[in-house]
Amino acid sequence: MYTYNNLLKTVQQYFAEENLNEEPAGLFDPIVYTMGLGGKRIRPLLMLAAADLFGGNVDQVRNAAIGIELFHNFTLLHDDLMDQSPLRRGQPTVYCKWNANTAILSGDTMFCLAWRYMLRSPKSDNAVLLDTFNEICMGVCKGQQYDMDFETRDDITLDDYLEMIRLKTAVLLAGALKIGALHTSAAPADIENLYRFGIAIGIAFQLRDDLLDAWGDVSSFGKQNGTDIKDNKKTYLYLSALAKGNEEEKAQLRSLFATTPQDPAEKIGTVIGLYNKQGIRQETEQAIARYHKEAEHYLAAIQVDETRKETLRDIAALLLDRNR
Amino acid sequence: MYTYNNLLKTVQQYFAEENLNEEPAGLFDPIVYTMGLGGKRIRPLLMLAAADLFGGNVDQVRNAAIGIELFHNFTLLHDDLMDQSPLRRGQPTVYCKWNANTAILSGDTMFCLAWRYMLRSPKSDNAVLLDTFNEICMGVCKGQQYDMDFETRDDITLDDYLEMIRLKTAVLLAGALKIGALHTSAAPADIENLYRFGIAIGIAFQLRDDLLDAWGDVSSFGKQNGTDIKDNKKTYLYLSALAKGNEEEKAQLRSLFATTPQDPAEKIGTVIGLYNKQGIRQETEQAIARYHKEAEHYLAAIQVDETRKETLRDIAALLLDRNR
Repeated sequence: MYTYNNLLKTVQQYFAEENLNEEPAGLFDPIVYTMGLGGKRIRPLLMLAAADLFGGNVDQVRNAAIGIELFHNFTLLHDDLMDQSPLRRGQPTVYCKWNANTAILSGDTMFCLAWRYMLRSPKSDNAVLLDTFNEICMGVCKGQQYDMDFETRDDITLDDYLEMIRLKTAVLLAGALKIGALHTSAAPADIENLYRFGIAIGIAFQLRDDLLDAWGDVSSFGKQNGTDIKDNKKTYLYLSALAKGNEEEKAQLRSLFATTPQDPAEKIGTVIGLYNKQGIRQETEQAIARYHKEAEHYLAAIQVDETRKETLRDIAALLLDRNR
Repeated sequence: MYTYNNLLKTVQQYFAEENLNEEPAGLFDPIVYTMGLGGKRIRPLLMLAAADLFGGNVDQVRNAAIGIELFHNFTLLHDDLMDQSPLRRGQPTVYCKWNANTAILSGDTMFCLAWRYMLRSPKSDNAVLLDTFNEICMGVCKGQQYDMDFETRDDITLDDYLEMIRLKTAVLLAGALKIGALHTSAAPADIENLYRFGIAIGIAFQLRDDLLDAWGDVSSFGKQNGTDIKDNKKTYLYLSALAKGNEEEKAQLRSLFATTPQDPAEKIGTVIGLYNKQGIRQETEQAIARYHKEAEHYLAAIQVDETRKETLRDIAALLLDRNR
């Protein structure tokens, strides 16, 4: 069995060994650059962990794991252009370092590459595996569209938000787990429970992200707090505060989220003050704990020896208990 | 056996019956709009014709045919944004009617949909079929990158250009034929000859496009002549003229293709005058005839009854002898 550290080393080895460079350079340089920015490699890690959970050979998952990370980075490349984000992992995004057209076309090519690797999996003759990958891709696109739609909508409920992050974030984590499991002889019921584990972890992971924007430990990473507030993003925090607040508080929050002051410090302070007053931090922690518990319930239902589940428990804890 | 008209009717029926609408509307409305703009449906038509050539059931090809047309229209959607083209088939392009982000994300979703349909083919368990589709996608991306690279390069040869249009245009036509054939019991050697037929037809098709820009029958379509000249596109005509001209003519052509006058009429007239003087029209017609003959050679080598080849001959003639 692999520990978290062994899996991470294995995944990093895959990417170190893989040469993604091809002609024309204008198309592939941005791809090599993007993949070289690193990142936590969570999705390939989950895929390998899933194969290992069911006693599979993790190296069988190699190509599918590279494929899922290529897909994830393709979505970041297009998202950064759509959101006009200048930085990713502290480095210039592709559309800034090159231009918008490069971000579009190199992104499209990364999507092609993702499929190429997925098709190189020794289990690519499994229709369920390919359908799962396709439905992940479709889900992420739908989630991104809802996310953009929400920017201009005033009627978003907490349930709308949870459905959006399920599509945008959770189906990719859950799908990575499922694809890993499909490389083994796991029973369909176990794979289904693993998928549900992934959905719950994915939603909790995004709620942790929302929470850290307001109360994260800035010193440990350097990212400023309050970016979501500055950008008027309708996060779990904002929607919970709207759901809990009295008429006056709702009106105040709505009017603050209709402004974009040059110096956002005061706005961020006021909003976090409102969140504190309403206990939003505790409420979000409780929601994360609830999804974590739900995930644990699905993991517990899987019919393999409990000791084999340790690594997935570790990864879940790392994703959900982080400071940044 | 199907005639060209029967095949076209069948393909149009497929699209008329297919409901591509899903939630969220912001994502799928532009897809439905794009597919509703029509077009000649050449790629699905070729796919059905290939299946019919080898005595296959064309309806088996239905999903793959819808998939290839979705893919083709996805590339148009992103190309129109990259090229900032306001019109497609006489109607506003998606990035103009909606916005750039919609063109990016609805395009990505069309690519997902293309895969969904490809995976629904009854032959999706054939690894060669899926690899072929993936390599088509990759080829089109590479071709588009070379096309954009050529805009700022001064050292393009005719061979560079032919390789670019092979990737950007021909592999998609040839791939459509191959995927159609893979739905039948055709022998690998016959499929290879059909693929080569498609490559030759695809290159000749693009050369016809280049030629029509300068000498096309405007009255039959209404599109202005000389758009490529106005946009300083390094087409087969321009590169042939550069290859044939004396030093003075080369210098004149190069300097004309470094300008973008507000009223391009005089520039277009001068360039076409130069082309006429050097016999570029005849030379391009000869190149088209050469590729057409090469295509015919590969079609002739296919081991099926000659009468079964009539429809593909008709389609080739329609693609290569058109006025617009």
